[in-house]
Amino acid sequence: MSQIRFPDALVERGGEGKKIVLFVLDGLGGLPHPESGLTELEAAKTPSLDALAAKSSLGALVPVLPGITPGSGPGHLSLFGYDPAEYIVGRGALSALGVGFDLQPGDLAARLNLATLDSQGLVQDRRAGRPPDEEGRRVVEKVREALVPPDGVQVFLDHEKEHRAVLILRGEGLKADLSDTDPQDTGVPPLPVVALDPESERSAGLMQNVLNQIQVILADEKVVTGVLARGFAAYGGFPSFEDRYGLKAVAIAQYPMYRGVARLVGMDVRGVPAEPTELVSLLEEYFDDYDFFFLHFKYTDSRGEDGDFDAKVQAIESVDPLVGQIQELGPEVLVVTGDHSTPATYKAHSWHSLAVLMASPWARPTAGRFGETGCRTGDLGTFEGKHLMTLALAHASRLAKFGA
Amino acid sequence: MSQIRFPDALVERGGEGKKIVLFVLDGLGGLPHPESGLTELEAAKTPSLDALAAKSSLGALVPVLPGITPGSGPGHLSLFGYDPAEYIVGRGALSALGVGFDLQPGDLAARLNLATLDSQGLVQDRRAGRPPDEEGRRVVEKVREALVPPDGVQVFLDHEKEHRAVLILRGEGLKADLSDTDPQDTGVPPLPVVALDPESERSAGLMQNVLNQIQVILADEKVVTGVLARGFAAYGGFPSFEDRYGLKAVAIAQYPMYRGVARLVGMDVRGVPAEPTELVSLLEEYFDDYDFFFLHFKYTDSRGEDGDFDAKVQAIESVDPLVGQIQELGPEVLVVTGDHSTPATYKAHSWHSLAVLMASPWARPTAGRFGETGCRTGDLGTFEGKHLMTLALAHASRLAKFGA
Repeated sequence: MSQIRFPDALVERGGEGKKIVLFVLDGLGGLPHPESGLTELEAAKTPSLDALAAKSSLGALVPVLPGITPGSGPGHLSLFGYDPAEYIVGRGALSALGVGFDLQPGDLAARLNLATLDSQGLVQDRRAGRPPDEEGRRVVEKVREALVPPDGVQVFLDHEKEHRAVLILRGEGLKADLSDTDPQDTGVPPLPVVALDPESERSAGLMQNVLNQIQVILADEKVVTGVLARGFAAYGGFPSFEDRYGLKAVAIAQYPMYRGVARLVGMDVRGVPAEPTELVSLLEEYFDDYDFFFLHFKYTDSRGEDGDFDAKVQAIESVDPLVGQIQELGPEVLVVTGDHSTPATYKAHSWHSLAVLMASPWARPTAGRFGETGCRTGDLGTFEGKHLMTLALAHASRLAKFGA
Repeated sequence: MSQIRFPDALVERGGEGKKIVLFVLDGLGGLPHPESGLTELEAAKTPSLDALAAKSSLGALVPVLPGITPGSGPGHLSLFGYDPAEYIVGRGALSALGVGFDLQPGDLAARLNLATLDSQGLVQDRRAGRPPDEEGRRVVEKVREALVPPDGVQVFLDHEKEHRAVLILRGEGLKADLSDTDPQDTGVPPLPVVALDPESERSAGLMQNVLNQIQVILADEKVVTGVLARGFAAYGGFPSFEDRYGLKAVAIAQYPMYRGVARLVGMDVRGVPAEPTELVSLLEEYFDDYDFFFLHFKYTDSRGEDGDFDAKVQAIESVDPLVGQIQELGPEVLVVTGDHSTPATYKAHSWHSLAVLMASPWARPTAGRFGETGCRTGDLGTFEGKHLMTLALAHASRLAKFGA
């Protein structure tokens, strides 16, 4: 099944200046509280969102496909209109984005496990006993200081969490068709880096050089005596928002992962809000310079992962006033939704559909508060996240008719 | 994502004689009136449709994909079960259908701009100042009379509107991989017709011959002194309704565009209703001869494009009695819907979903009038138009089980 493509036939270009704001409340969707039967969003007092919902097209957004729980990368790519089943971001690249690394097109990234190898070089513990973050950071810092980059590349190394770190090579012509060195077993040596196609052979050599150096640098350690590499990913660059939709786009997000995903699709990243209320002041500051604004609020997801129902309700209530302030700036289209559900009872990302609101002059309102139940019977029906941008462009009068 | 295909696995053949009527109210979907909050369909008094809705499966039909506004061609192909992202009808072919030209498989069509070229043959106005229709028709008639068809082809030329005309070559082995002659600029000469693959070279020569002749014929004109060609399209024929679904199909439509689209999928076209009430008498006349009947009513779309809310309400009310009359003929399945929305407030085709009703012995009714709000929570949910035919075939007991 082919898909209608941007921008070949569809994008109505030419400076109409109609602006779209996408306000993402991370992990917005929830599950009912066992006592009240209301989700976090339904339990929250949200007068601004409810007033806006009464004038908006509502719907239930399926993050990727029914039953699929997305990570932050695919969840946001979907909202940006990039089918996450087609636009794959390798694990290594997602890890690099996750630690706030400024990934550039052409970079080759890998996830590293800090591991324990025995005196014969055989894997004894694939995760080095899950070292505390402090110990992980120390070891990574030691490697970083001693490592000599092979000719023609720069090497970056960052600690992620516990036994996880991320390694990035930057240089010309790097390729990622490389096999993992993690043998997924103990009592055996790490595997060599093998090029899976001829074009990746130079990259395999460079990566092996770096991994061999790391082995030597860690030889005098007690616990973290080696590393295992997997999830090699070269970030090749996706078609940009501007090329695809004719939109000059900017991301305003407090956390590095979300600025990183925005950068993958060519958004500018400006101003890091110190707290959520600054989302609006930064939006106001850049409002004349862009067509599209991606605003990201993190704490709905964090409180859901904590399993704290009431705190997630409060997080939702804390952003409610922002919605009215955004609307006062007069965007043509304001979309409020999340990238996936993070129900407090589930304590993790989930696959459940979530509320979406699209305020525009061409909305078709239905009775219903801004909540899972109210949105489900809305004008937009239940739809996959990858269609959200098409809808937003249509509501902004930025799409030409398809066919005569 | 693969799609279940017809007729390989699915069509239950063999003279069951169960009949399907698809009644398309063009541009049926609407947006709320600012005062009443009701759409055109919700405001209309439709006792027959409401009575039928109470016995039918209801749903919200997304014409193509969320946010995509279709033209009449893609909109109807979708209703006929031909994914419009896969079955592309070129601009030239759509223009030919639009003027009611009887396009045949193998025809090569192009859109023409009547243009003004200066004494040196450079483009001065790509639209010849948008001449009145009368002037456009006169010029086209003059060309038609003087033009000598090149060996082996017939040439057809029709005026469309203002500066637009359509040119069709008919003959063996014509190919459409040709570049436009419209330079999209002034002060430069028209471009030559260039074959974009070797198989199109003969067609390029034939087309250039015709365009050169037109240039000479128009040499003594003051305003329309040349033409620019674009959107070359060879209509190769789509798999027919009969091959795909095992249905003998007929179209009954007042306007040429819709008879044309029906012909693209191999439907017979019989009897042109002088007014909408004749849709039913013609249906009755052909009822024994076919399995599938496509009835098209235009004025819901026209009044929406006019921006006349009340007139669109009246157009809907005018067809309501027809629905009861159709049902009396006893089709197994009666589908009532539109090919897209044309809200009077929007004054154009739009992407909004629209009401669909499927009356059959296997319907699963829900409470709800026949309107956007009532249908949205119906049995069929919100679904893409390309699935409509599968549903209709199922409700007509014309689909075999998929898999054992």
